[in-house]
Amino acid sequence: MAQQHRAHLTRHSIMVAAAEEIDEVGYEAARLSAILRRCGTTKGAFYFHFSGKQEVAHALVERYREHLAELSTRWYERGQDPLATMVGLTCDTARRLEEDVLLRAGLSLACNHVGTETDGWEFLFDDLIGRAADHGLLRPGVDPAATARLCYAVAVGTNLLVAGDPRRLAARLEESWRVLLPGLAVDGTRVAAAVG
Amino acid sequence: MAQQHRAHLTRHSIMVAAAEEIDEVGYEAARLSAILRRCGTTKGAFYFHFSGKQEVAHALVERYREHLAELSTRWYERGQDPLATMVGLTCDTARRLEEDVLLRAGLSLACNHVGTETDGWEFLFDDLIGRAADHGLLRPGVDPAATARLCYAVAVGTNLLVAGDPRRLAARLEESWRVLLPGLAVDGTRVAAAVG
Repeated sequence: MAQQHRAHLTRHSIMVAAAEEIDEVGYEAARLSAILRRCGTTKGAFYFHFSGKQEVAHALVERYREHLAELSTRWYERGQDPLATMVGLTCDTARRLEEDVLLRAGLSLACNHVGTETDGWEFLFDDLIGRAADHGLLRPGVDPAATARLCYAVAVGTNLLVAGDPRRLAARLEESWRVLLPGLAVDGTRVAAAVG
Repeated sequence: MAQQHRAHLTRHSIMVAAAEEIDEVGYEAARLSAILRRCGTTKGAFYFHFSGKQEVAHALVERYREHLAELSTRWYERGQDPLATMVGLTCDTARRLEEDVLLRAGLSLACNHVGTETDGWEFLFDDLIGRAADHGLLRPGVDPAATARLCYAVAVGTNLLVAGDPRRLAARLEESWRVLLPGLAVDGTRVAAAVG
């Protein structure tokens, strides 16, 4: 049992070290030797847990996806209106990304496959804006599918523009929704005012 | 003179080959041998023009910047209102990016330095939205600086989301402005309707 716990800790410390290295230099440039140096783990211990850098990356993407799934479930279950849910979920995720290097690396790895794989957000924006339309929350003439794509672009673009300083992500995203929502939603000013 | 012309052609064909390779596999993965194979140029001829891959990349970024400077001057000189200029300039650029692999690689190389270097668009959005505010074109309560940052994020995000298929960039960007502008600008519906 103690041994199992130790193995779990080693696996986790490898993932943290890989995430830190990927966060700093990017996936392509991240070297296994640098990851091992960061966590003080031997090559043998590493290969006991992972077949290589790619498998750690997959584990980080997996962890990111699970985390996003849990978080979105929690926000949906609050029962707020869909636009408030969108703002709450995205800003909550942004704050977690600021603090959690594992999540940050997981998202960046998932994002580098945009087009082929997915980071999970395309579905979420489509679903939440669709629900907002069903609830009559969008202004007349606002196209839900196009609005969902715009919100996705805003989130992705904002994330990219603060890439040098992830601690600014939540603040910039809050600002984006505050500018965007009053023009799109019937009650957008109230939703936007509740941001933060 | 003929020799000078030939040298110019060689330099250009190296830049095209490098742009194609970078466009396909990314800067990090682009290998000099693959670039030389694409343009059928010898290593000697390559090193006559460039000190290495990095210098070709710099030349591509430089060409992109010059192109953007010319294009924005042309759009400013049309004397349209600042929002129409923003829509026209961004969609025009998007259409050129679809067709011109040199531009596409230049932008992607400039973008990978967002935060440290610049792709030129932060200034343009700030300037155009600032002018729109000065002309009273923004709705009451719309913050110009925050709106400029939002528009920049929209452009960057839209570009990233169609990365797998650059031929969709202009259409997606037109759609983004069409959804975004009516909520932000007094006359946004007219400006957005003129898109395309």
